Amino acid sequence: MDKTALIVIDMINTYDHKDAELLLPSATAVVPVLTTLLGRARERGAPVVYVNDNFGEWRSHHGELLDRALAGPHADLVDPVRPDARSLFVLKARHSIFFETPLTYLLHEQGIRRLVLCGQVTEQCVLYSALDAHIRHFEVIVPRDAVAHIHQDLAEAALLMMERNMGAHVCASRDLWR
Amino acid sequence: MDKTALIVIDMINTYDHKDAELLLPSATAVVPVLTTLLGRARERGAPVVYVNDNFGEWRSHHGELLDRALAGPHADLVDPVRPDARSLFVLKARHSIFFETPLTYLLHEQGIRRLVLCGQVTEQCVLYSALDAHIRHFEVIVPRDAVAHIHQDLAEAALLMMERNMGAHVCASRDLWR
Amino acid sequence: MDKTALIVIDMINTYDHKDAELLLPSATAVVPVLTTLLGRARERGAPVVYVNDNFGEWRSHHGELLDRALAGPHADLVDPVRPDARSLFVLKARHSIFFETPLTYLLHEQGIRRLVLCGQVTEQCVLYSALDAHIRHFEVIVPRDAVAHIHQDLAEAALLMMERNMGAHVCASRDLWR
Amino acid sequence: MDKTALIVIDMINTYDHKDAELLLPSATAVVPVLTTLLGRARERGAPVVYVNDNFGEWRSHHGELLDRALAGPHADLVDPVRPDARSLFVLKARHSIFFETPLTYLLHEQGIRRLVLCGQVTEQCVLYSALDAHIRHFEVIVPRDAVAHIHQDLAEAALLMMERNMGAHVCASRDLWR
Repeated sequence: MDKTALIVIDMINTYDHKDAELLLPSATAVVPVLTTLLGRARERGAPVVYVNDNFGEWRSHHGELLDRALAGPHADLVDPVRPDARSLFVLKARHSIFFETPLTYLLHEQGIRRLVLCGQVTEQCVLYSALDAHIRHFEVIVPRDAVAHIHQDLAEAALLMMERNMGAHVCASRDLWR
Repeated sequence: MDKTALIVIDMINTYDHKDAELLLPSATAVVPVLTTLLGRARERGAPVVYVNDNFGEWRSHHGELLDRALAGPHADLVDPVRPDARSLFVLKARHSIFFETPLTYLLHEQGIRRLVLCGQVTEQCVLYSALDAHIRHFEVIVPRDAVAHIHQDLAEAALLMMERNMGAHVCASRDLWR
Repeated sequence: MDKTALIVIDMINTYDHKDAELLLPSATAVVPVLTTLLGRARERGAPVVYVNDNFGEWRSHHGELLDRALAGPHADLVDPVRPDARSLFVLKARHSIFFETPLTYLLHEQGIRRLVLCGQVTEQCVLYSALDAHIRHFEVIVPRDAVAHIHQDLAEAALLMMERNMGAHVCASRDLWR
Repeated sequence: MDKTALIVIDMINTYDHKDAELLLPSATAVVPVLTTLLGRARERGAPVVYVNDNFGEWRSHHGELLDRALAGPHADLVDPVRPDARSLFVLKARHSIFFETPLTYLLHEQGIRRLVLCGQVTEQCVLYSALDAHIRHFEVIVPRDAVAHIHQDLAEAALLMMERNMGAHVCASRDLWR
């Protein structure tokens, strides 16, 4: 799969926000899956782009965000999936990875047309980002075991919406970068 | 309710697109509800903004779109909810009412901060538009009997997402502009 | 020149705005040049896109704008350059042809990569549109005899900026679609 | 002046790009002026927002950009105007400070309506940013001794354009935060 990027959404996280307790079990299950997927993507030289909330911190850059997350009580969910020296990084202020960020520009510039969306939250940022990617004519792949949810029922509906209405390919992470 | 606009999404329609057959029963139920709501909003002087797909027609304006829809086999679903002389009109090219349209600009310019989203399709354009409105800090109200769906299950999930994750107020149309 | 569109900026105009008196001599000189250029572009089947201010009228479409301009005292400046049945039309609310309009989407969708910018005002909308086109990686051509100015000195500087800093090709209209 | 932010454009710079030789004399003159202005703004508690090119480095954050600039031959032009612990920071990929950046969102969120634009280059990024600020209805102030140019003639024209066509207030830096 060339021209395909792995997009890691909101995994640099202190997990101290509203609903974090509901998210933690799912995030805990996703981290090892995503770790494996990151390893395979990096091995193949696929571009990895972290797109992460700035948590209202307009000063923050990925170093600061990462340091804070690694200093928190849930460092074990952050350390395995941290950016490496080649990772690209885009800060977002709101839900969608595309809203007022340079992501469209970055992806076009690098000739990336296909996005593997991973991270959290399935029925929120992942869903919204899948929509915004589809609107912009990117091809979207969502490995269902590499996205974490808060509400199981909404997550199931979100995956169905992505598949049925946004042309996304929902698959298992083991099918990617094999 | 001042500073509140009624937003009518994709109701100027020939209903000859994919999935139209699935949409028609729901749209048929929505038209009289929306007609009443339009009447009440107009009576109170609330701004009414039609935001409608251009159906790939970059020449089209609302006159042409309306003429075509009124000449089609489903004119009875279009005629009762047609724009009047005071209606505003914004063409969109993709799903969300905000994507590459002047809608944000128009709403800010007119001091409108609260949007009543009506029309179709609940689990598609209405959902996406509710999200994009929320991201832009508009207050969103969705009268559940004034939005039409293709798939009942996804529509239910969409309304739940709007309420739980996008801060939308989901209500009955009879509660608006009473 | 394939994949090249002729972009006609703000020529559907009643010329009753501030500074119109300063603009009229230049616009009067540009109209016959643009008429010839429109003829040659249409003959070759090049797409012609009118991008025009909505003059604050959110109801307006190109029919209404055109009718009003043709009913005004400067109809002679509008009639020769009016849209024909194949012309595309995009309404803008602010200076740049790209600001909160679907123009980027339309151009990408039609595979258009090169823009010939004509119309008015050289040191305002034409300059801003050239910049926004350059930022979006479109190739820009500006026929200097087909753009109208309010202030000669600023127009000269604007053309120099387009050429030197925005990678635009400034030429004579007779060199296009020969 | 409350609700006014000092915007520092592209001053974190290695000055090894095309035209840097032409820019250096003007930048050298601007640095002490901007240093004084920064001091006064910080003393008054005015928000200071650095908006800086990422120089094609999608990994970069302000720490990395700053380190690189301070390690280069023109560290003396960067050190006096470096961000402090309260400075906000926005990366841009293209000329305008608003193009695909979260700046509009940040400014609205912080209630900032008036922008003092400083830095470089007068007839390029400063001009384009003044335009994009004006289009978005921000009030713009440009202290003419705190902006650096490459070409004197175009810079003069650019300042005239900002004043005449973009409603900007062009002044002397000594008149700000007195």
